[in-house]
Amino acid sequence: MTKACPFAAPSGYIRPVNYSSPACRKACLHRGRQRIVAIGDRSAGRFRGGRFDQGVTPTKHSSEEIVMTTTDDENQIRTLINRWAEAACSGDLDRVMACYAPDVVAFDAIVALQFRGVDAYRKHWEYCMGFAPGDMLFTIPEMNISVGGDIAYCHFLVSCGCTDEKGNEQTGWMRGTVCLRRLKGQWRIAHEHYSAPFDPESMKALTDLEPE
Amino acid sequence: MTKACPFAAPSGYIRPVNYSSPACRKACLHRGRQRIVAIGDRSAGRFRGGRFDQGVTPTKHSSEEIVMTTTDDENQIRTLINRWAEAACSGDLDRVMACYAPDVVAFDAIVALQFRGVDAYRKHWEYCMGFAPGDMLFTIPEMNISVGGDIAYCHFLVSCGCTDEKGNEQTGWMRGTVCLRRLKGQWRIAHEHYSAPFDPESMKALTDLEPE
Repeated sequence: MTKACPFAAPSGYIRPVNYSSPACRKACLHRGRQRIVAIGDRSAGRFRGGRFDQGVTPTKHSSEEIVMTTTDDENQIRTLINRWAEAACSGDLDRVMACYAPDVVAFDAIVALQFRGVDAYRKHWEYCMGFAPGDMLFTIPEMNISVGGDIAYCHFLVSCGCTDEKGNEQTGWMRGTVCLRRLKGQWRIAHEHYSAPFDPESMKALTDLEPE
Repeated sequence: MTKACPFAAPSGYIRPVNYSSPACRKACLHRGRQRIVAIGDRSAGRFRGGRFDQGVTPTKHSSEEIVMTTTDDENQIRTLINRWAEAACSGDLDRVMACYAPDVVAFDAIVALQFRGVDAYRKHWEYCMGFAPGDMLFTIPEMNISVGGDIAYCHFLVSCGCTDEKGNEQTGWMRGTVCLRRLKGQWRIAHEHYSAPFDPESMKALTDLEPE
């Protein structure tokens, strides 16, 4: 029997609905019945020659260099994360793992401090697949991407969820930071950090917060 | 009367000792009686022209550019984080905040999803200063730094703690990701993400984990 997803009705839940974490995204991989994935393209800011602005014009990246336009890199990174999310929703773990650098260091929202390397992280994904009450929802309405040479980072709030056994959506907000590097011309996730903040009084994850 | 630091003896603590978070680091700022700060200089890897290695020789950063040696940038970033930590321990909030870019986006371990801009984040620091049972310990034994042009990121496990009212050390491990950009020649923290993972069954922060 499949274990119940802890995010569908976790014990000690501050509000008993409206949440699942990125871990739940993984947890629901093997269901693969739903592919609702939305990655926003509204960057809060784009890095341009030492400052942030909203422009898209190719520009000198710094005083020493001229690189591929940041917009091209941003699009490639957005495509990578879309592919990663689509692979996650379709339960294609191999495609998910192909998005990572071999020596990825991951700080996931649950269970452990870190996972070092794709083999260790794959096991964690497989572990998370044991939880799966229903299908998945995963939305990043706004992503902030910064690129410099062959590295990049982005951060975002992610609305992540599952549908439970009754078909009700369980979604909530988490924080995501993804750091990338370009390997043989392809962007790969070298580090990622997902989390929920916690209440310092109860020590419980704050899973019902909404972006302001 | 000063509020008790929630990290010293939080309710629902899985193990009632051996923990305080980066938030506790902030919480203890105003004590300023202890300045024990250790930032490791053992990079797990250094970014060099599209790959990680352990070398320190100046090198071309990518096919398009020659930039300041990564080691110089790494040292500047390490110096910045040292300065930030020392300022935190000495209770010098102005010096702490000077380490951030004006439009910093922070994902802190407690209370809220995010803090946008130095004004909002400063208020959070001030809020955290309300908790302060004792002095502070803050150690990053190993820091992984990657630099590309005018941006950089680093990630680490941080042993963070306070001394409680009885003088006992309360330390524990958290995860930290710090993303930076160079502004007018100076590295500044543009984004940071601190967290503890949580137990998906109890929904409680896992504050007693040790690095493997």
